[in-house]
Amino acid sequence: MGKFLTEDFLLHSEEARELYHNYASDMPIIDYHSHLPPAEISEDRNFDTLTSIWLDGDHYKWRAMRTLGIDEQYITGNAADREKFRKWAYAVPYTMRNPLYHWTHMELKNYFGIEILLNADTADDIYTTANEQLRQPNFSARSLLKRMNVEVVCTTDDPVDTLDHHQGLRESDFEITVLPAFRPDAAFNFDDPASYNSYIDELQEASNIEISSLNSLLEALGQRVDYFHQHGCRLSDHGLQRMYYRPASPEQLNRYYRRIRNQGKELSEEQKQALTSHILLQLGRMYNEHDWVQQFHLGALRNANERMYNKMGPAVGFDSIGDFQQSRALANFLNELDKNRELPKTILYNLNPADNEVIATMTGNFNDGSVRGKIQYGSAWWFLDQKDGMEEQMNILSNMGLLSCFIGMLTDSRSFLSFPRHEYFRRILCNLIGNDVANGELPDDMEWLGKIVSDICYYNAREYFDFHPAPVKN
Amino acid sequence: MGKFLTEDFLLHSEEARELYHNYASDMPIIDYHSHLPPAEISEDRNFDTLTSIWLDGDHYKWRAMRTLGIDEQYITGNAADREKFRKWAYAVPYTMRNPLYHWTHMELKNYFGIEILLNADTADDIYTTANEQLRQPNFSARSLLKRMNVEVVCTTDDPVDTLDHHQGLRESDFEITVLPAFRPDAAFNFDDPASYNSYIDELQEASNIEISSLNSLLEALGQRVDYFHQHGCRLSDHGLQRMYYRPASPEQLNRYYRRIRNQGKELSEEQKQALTSHILLQLGRMYNEHDWVQQFHLGALRNANERMYNKMGPAVGFDSIGDFQQSRALANFLNELDKNRELPKTILYNLNPADNEVIATMTGNFNDGSVRGKIQYGSAWWFLDQKDGMEEQMNILSNMGLLSCFIGMLTDSRSFLSFPRHEYFRRILCNLIGNDVANGELPDDMEWLGKIVSDICYYNAREYFDFHPAPVKN
Amino acid sequence: MGKFLTEDFLLHSEEARELYHNYASDMPIIDYHSHLPPAEISEDRNFDTLTSIWLDGDHYKWRAMRTLGIDEQYITGNAADREKFRKWAYAVPYTMRNPLYHWTHMELKNYFGIEILLNADTADDIYTTANEQLRQPNFSARSLLKRMNVEVVCTTDDPVDTLDHHQGLRESDFEITVLPAFRPDAAFNFDDPASYNSYIDELQEASNIEISSLNSLLEALGQRVDYFHQHGCRLSDHGLQRMYYRPASPEQLNRYYRRIRNQGKELSEEQKQALTSHILLQLGRMYNEHDWVQQFHLGALRNANERMYNKMGPAVGFDSIGDFQQSRALANFLNELDKNRELPKTILYNLNPADNEVIATMTGNFNDGSVRGKIQYGSAWWFLDQKDGMEEQMNILSNMGLLSCFIGMLTDSRSFLSFPRHEYFRRILCNLIGNDVANGELPDDMEWLGKIVSDICYYNAREYFDFHPAPVKN
Repeated sequence: MGKFLTEDFLLHSEEARELYHNYASDMPIIDYHSHLPPAEISEDRNFDTLTSIWLDGDHYKWRAMRTLGIDEQYITGNAADREKFRKWAYAVPYTMRNPLYHWTHMELKNYFGIEILLNADTADDIYTTANEQLRQPNFSARSLLKRMNVEVVCTTDDPVDTLDHHQGLRESDFEITVLPAFRPDAAFNFDDPASYNSYIDELQEASNIEISSLNSLLEALGQRVDYFHQHGCRLSDHGLQRMYYRPASPEQLNRYYRRIRNQGKELSEEQKQALTSHILLQLGRMYNEHDWVQQFHLGALRNANERMYNKMGPAVGFDSIGDFQQSRALANFLNELDKNRELPKTILYNLNPADNEVIATMTGNFNDGSVRGKIQYGSAWWFLDQKDGMEEQMNILSNMGLLSCFIGMLTDSRSFLSFPRHEYFRRILCNLIGNDVANGELPDDMEWLGKIVSDICYYNAREYFDFHPAPVKN
Repeated sequence: MGKFLTEDFLLHSEEARELYHNYASDMPIIDYHSHLPPAEISEDRNFDTLTSIWLDGDHYKWRAMRTLGIDEQYITGNAADREKFRKWAYAVPYTMRNPLYHWTHMELKNYFGIEILLNADTADDIYTTANEQLRQPNFSARSLLKRMNVEVVCTTDDPVDTLDHHQGLRESDFEITVLPAFRPDAAFNFDDPASYNSYIDELQEASNIEISSLNSLLEALGQRVDYFHQHGCRLSDHGLQRMYYRPASPEQLNRYYRRIRNQGKELSEEQKQALTSHILLQLGRMYNEHDWVQQFHLGALRNANERMYNKMGPAVGFDSIGDFQQSRALANFLNELDKNRELPKTILYNLNPADNEVIATMTGNFNDGSVRGKIQYGSAWWFLDQKDGMEEQMNILSNMGLLSCFIGMLTDSRSFLSFPRHEYFRRILCNLIGNDVANGELPDDMEWLGKIVSDICYYNAREYFDFHPAPVKN
Repeated sequence: MGKFLTEDFLLHSEEARELYHNYASDMPIIDYHSHLPPAEISEDRNFDTLTSIWLDGDHYKWRAMRTLGIDEQYITGNAADREKFRKWAYAVPYTMRNPLYHWTHMELKNYFGIEILLNADTADDIYTTANEQLRQPNFSARSLLKRMNVEVVCTTDDPVDTLDHHQGLRESDFEITVLPAFRPDAAFNFDDPASYNSYIDELQEASNIEISSLNSLLEALGQRVDYFHQHGCRLSDHGLQRMYYRPASPEQLNRYYRRIRNQGKELSEEQKQALTSHILLQLGRMYNEHDWVQQFHLGALRNANERMYNKMGPAVGFDSIGDFQQSRALANFLNELDKNRELPKTILYNLNPADNEVIATMTGNFNDGSVRGKIQYGSAWWFLDQKDGMEEQMNILSNMGLLSCFIGMLTDSRSFLSFPRHEYFRRILCNLIGNDVANGELPDDMEWLGKIVSDICYYNAREYFDFHPAPVKN
């Protein structure tokens, strides 16, 4: 395999290697944004096959397989786990230069000790070896997290969630802090009145507040924010094409809301945006009162393929990058909160790299000296979460903000096998800084630069989120 | 000349050199999109001077000369061929770092064996030497194609074209397959009613169908699609600022069309877009029935300079890159065809690099497992067809799709001397992959990577287009 | 400090070093766009402390400090100079990889001979050493310019300015040519009627022309253009989110203008744009008559933070990069002037790198052979004025235009200590070209490439601006 995936993988200078091995590799992981299922951590699930832990739900892999002309039967269909794995193994060599190729082999190596390349010829051996290991106790969900030196995991949860699994985990002896995060997107997804109202009925029940007006919606959301806070939640998340800022009078807003909630009628684009921006502003104020961090994931064009959406629903690999105008409304939105000092700590994740500089410089408009790195330009996300994308995010952050204040990486993943992405990120980070030293663009002061590396890998996030309860319990 | 233009030009690692020399350089060329004049191939034209084969019609060179302050007389004006060549030779050293500089010297070397640098001092010698060669039989249009190992050439043709030259070529003993491609842009260019109707009159005549309504227009276009198909055409092409998707009722569409066709009146922007999107959807369905590939060239801002347009017409060097919103309408358009499984194989070429990731990820929304690499993110185009642009296109395709399924390069050129652009592309491709091996980012398996290189240079395009008649006749 | 900031800083090949040391480093500086205060040059100001010459007014540094969580008191507030300096020194190590880190140490080295790194520990020593030097005559404003080999400086001046300081400088024995530049932004900033009219009252007084209509406004501006021209001004500048092109009838324009000027009423967005585009077209014609160069700085989103704007006003570090549609209106605007050959030499600066290619290719639409490099894609600006940004600007210019015709760098700075940015630029330029030679992408002809380097550093700007009076008086 040549120099592929050696211990100095991606580290192209002596200085990079020193930074990684001495200051990055041992840092604990604070995975402050993930989609891990709390139930599986709570019940400490063991997985039957590599297919179930690795391919199920992984729409990155699915897209690659579809591009190769593989039939859906072997992707999300009825084929047996072994058949699906064989198709994936066939696909792997064709993913060369895609992050899937690196992730695949890092995950095989780090979790299973498998150092041969996955392809059609090695598929069956690897499948057998890995499956045997998966049945061992040290491959349960909790064990996998512990082996990766994880200190905190935040899941992503709907306001209507009871958080029972989180409660169970808090009361258990599990050493890792698992916290919920508040993702209220469904409360302002006005596209389909019937689905919307059915969701709001659920929220009504969860909050025990009758929701018949915009104010009662906000009251119910506030009740859930409190509830989440009591369960250790310290951050929220929102997925939007772009931020909206469309002021409207209370009368207008109430009328729009009655229209969808009481009359079950569709809203115009303008009405949706006015409601969304109002709800997000009110939520922002609640987050600020609770000293939460708010996250915004901006720029995705979702569910582009109607035929597949009708068949399979959302988040199955038919989303792409959108080109929406971001700057003006985002500035106005943040400004509206800042005006009366109601702007909480905020992380802006961006999906369209054409907007990277817009987002990176936007943060500086609201960094007001009150908190170190208050507004964060979030880590490279989704399609951008690969070497080039991470390098670009970090270079832009360096040039237009302060890399030293960056809170670093997160998995954003549904899989227990995704934690080597932190290693990937750390290698890339150390490589960038190390090469700068090697090139004479930074002074050769490894202690200082090593400190900055550890800050970005771990300490900045620890300080920024200040999670309670205490992150490590042992 | 130092290391300039040696046999290892652009190949910066041992692995890159191995990939290029062993797996890329000997591959035949399938030039599936060009603007070569079929008449000149058919009559096997010999060119009198280097000016006539090299400068005439080359608006890349013209723009550079104008930027240098050279008078139009020596560019497209009445100056003698020798004078024009001298001005171009003077300009060449000032094009350093522009792709023109590389192309110029590759073309002099590959076709004429001239390895000295072109500038004001060497102009006359080079002009004389090249002109002598140009008069030889082995410098005729057909000979030039054969010497470059071309297997298939697709020209770009208007629906009203009789395809007589193509017919002649098919009946000749010419070893290279020369096929037409269908470019119906004029049928939905509604900007000027008079020009539009005059074009539609031509289409009426070519199709022998009276065009007095939208339906008869579509019928006439369908007739031409059939006709082109009978003449071996397997792909279409369309140039648009951006894709449109603007549904309208049949009554509205008919009314808009009557307005321009029967009443000669101007259309509003919305009316134009509604008609264009309808016509393109109907064409897409026809292409799909014929198993054609459809191409879209998106993102150009054309004819920006009215004064020069009025003097010289279109495509003479006064176009630039536009910033149009691409994602939403493009997704809707492709979705509309996909919905009922009417979406043909599609190539999306993008001119604004800010939209590269939007386009690259869009392809994944409609890769449905039916065909390998069904929706292609097309090769770097026009202003982007240079080393940085090609590298960026391939890196983005790698990160957000599958480079291994890429159908690779095309000349898009009006000139018989442009085929070294395939060599240029192949060197850049091999350099990217080779360096990844050298850096340990890909395993050192030259056979496997060599296969992927040959696929991208040749085999993928052969499989994707599956041209009939058989590509090689010898 | 390892290889940091040695004499070969940023020069990564033998060829790069040769180009820089032999062809770039000794070139005089034509700083054709700056914000230096003419009064300080005129009175040959000495600065008391490093804080006053280096931190006062430098909103780049302020943003970094705010991001680090430093209280405004130590940034723009009442803290003593020494305290402010200490806070900045503390911040410096955290600016690693930001251009501030390089600029800071280049400025300490080039002006003060200080070669230790600035941080909390070295703060007091450096402060004392530098302050001692600042009090010497060879650290006065004029001396600082002379030591940097400056030949011409253009300031940025409002049409209402009397230009008394410029007049004084012309009559003095100061060897450096200091010229005004015309920046009439306030004359088309229609956002607040009261401020607008108060500004127009000033303009009325300065021009001695009563401004009660659009025509009299243009007459007054014309008077000021003449006045500036008599004082040696040869270029204008305009800051806009994006260019506007919105034709309107004379009646409409007059009505809009009366609305704000005579009735003090607010204008709609459309009315503002119509007036702005008309005024800029008329100004463009005046510039053309005077053979001036017009500059446009496009793409900033200014004053995003209302709370801080109300407290501190504009240009204090709360601006960011906007995403505005640029291409269509910009093309139409330039075309409108070109149509009747009224388009002056023009420099287009772009702040959003997503638009770099749009701007770079736009220049080619109006390069008509009349002047070498007539329309310039301006040097990397503001947030882009760092190594990556400059490299990108020069690479795009190379690929899509002609780097050889580039008029190069400017400081755009309010500080007398910013001139090492020219050195920074020159090193980056030489590194790009030198590496191309080292990689075999350019022939190894140092004399020719050295000439192009000197052209870009100095001779191109000299020829392009052709400043009168003669640039060097000694």
